[in-house]
Amino acid sequence: MTPSTGPSGTPRRAPAGAAVLREDVTEAIRAAVFEELAAVGYARMSIEGIARRAGVGKTAVYRRWKSKLALVLDLVGAFAVQGLPAPATGTLYGDVRALLEVAAHALRHPVASQVIPDLLVEAARHPEIADTLKAVLLDSQQGVMAQVVRAAVERGELPGGEAEGGGAADPDRALDLVLGPLYWRLVVVRTEPPKGYLDDLARSAVAALTA
Amino acid sequence: MTPSTGPSGTPRRAPAGAAVLREDVTEAIRAAVFEELAAVGYARMSIEGIARRAGVGKTAVYRRWKSKLALVLDLVGAFAVQGLPAPATGTLYGDVRALLEVAAHALRHPVASQVIPDLLVEAARHPEIADTLKAVLLDSQQGVMAQVVRAAVERGELPGGEAEGGGAADPDRALDLVLGPLYWRLVVVRTEPPKGYLDDLARSAVAALTA
Repeated sequence: MTPSTGPSGTPRRAPAGAAVLREDVTEAIRAAVFEELAAVGYARMSIEGIARRAGVGKTAVYRRWKSKLALVLDLVGAFAVQGLPAPATGTLYGDVRALLEVAAHALRHPVASQVIPDLLVEAARHPEIADTLKAVLLDSQQGVMAQVVRAAVERGELPGGEAEGGGAADPDRALDLVLGPLYWRLVVVRTEPPKGYLDDLARSAVAALTA
Repeated sequence: MTPSTGPSGTPRRAPAGAAVLREDVTEAIRAAVFEELAAVGYARMSIEGIARRAGVGKTAVYRRWKSKLALVLDLVGAFAVQGLPAPATGTLYGDVRALLEVAAHALRHPVASQVIPDLLVEAARHPEIADTLKAVLLDSQQGVMAQVVRAAVERGELPGGEAEGGGAADPDRALDLVLGPLYWRLVVVRTEPPKGYLDDLARSAVAALTA
């Protein structure tokens, strides 16, 4: 067994049977992954390149994550959880506007603008990536949107009844109408939206939801 | 100068000063590019791999396109032009519904579901790809949407005035509201929409546009 070496020094050996992982090394690897992803993309990224950038040996990476995919999904998962509070402003417009604010912030983060599109490309070829990505990113968003829609139905702002299959109370449809235009503009078209764009989008989305 | 060789035979030599390119070889290369893109993605695709799959020599590819990027942008360009007639149904709902039909068809095509996301990922790192992709894909869509919006303003279905900066007559805003939800569902979320989805989306988009 070769100990990992690098500019940050030889890591302390773990006592037999217990893995002691230095948190500063873990953080250096995490930072290196974002830099590598931004520089070369998921497909071209290697554990070797990550280790070199982090100034650690490959073993230090493999001791923490079993593969490049596991590493990236772990980072995306941490990012997804922090970005999604459920708004409760008391109106559908207020809740939608709050969701758009959080989403716009998240979609301008390097994880969303580079890492997630990268992983979506991989997901088209590898169902296991698609499933993990869906669990990490969409399930929490759907949960938040379901709460927002349920509250709007209770207040009488949206008709109740059909909660699936495209009715006004279907959270998937609501997610399409609220997040779709923002994602399209910020991630696909990538032109700077005009002033007051989120206010306008919230108004438009509420009109679309109640159509 | 080495002639290209391969299972499809040695191509006829072009007379000095004139390039005679066999159309069947060109078509075999085009088909091979789609297969390679689907199998390995843009980043991992090589001219060598394309040539091998097409059963031709690398020279046969380089005689037609100077790089992998030029090749793929050429294919995407041909695809974009064929997919975009400007609807003129006489109502905003009818025009939006027709646009959604064409877009849904296009977004289910392998070019859209695999090649374009691939290129968007590259575009985040290479401004020249972003510019070409924008010219090829968005400019034509914006042109079509501008016509649809102008016709709706003339019929009094949309308020006129501000044609830029987020007003109801701004074609970029219209594109966000019409194509955004569909792209989100078909390319990002990738779950099958319920029956009647395009009708519902057209109704919702018209409500959003006039909000």
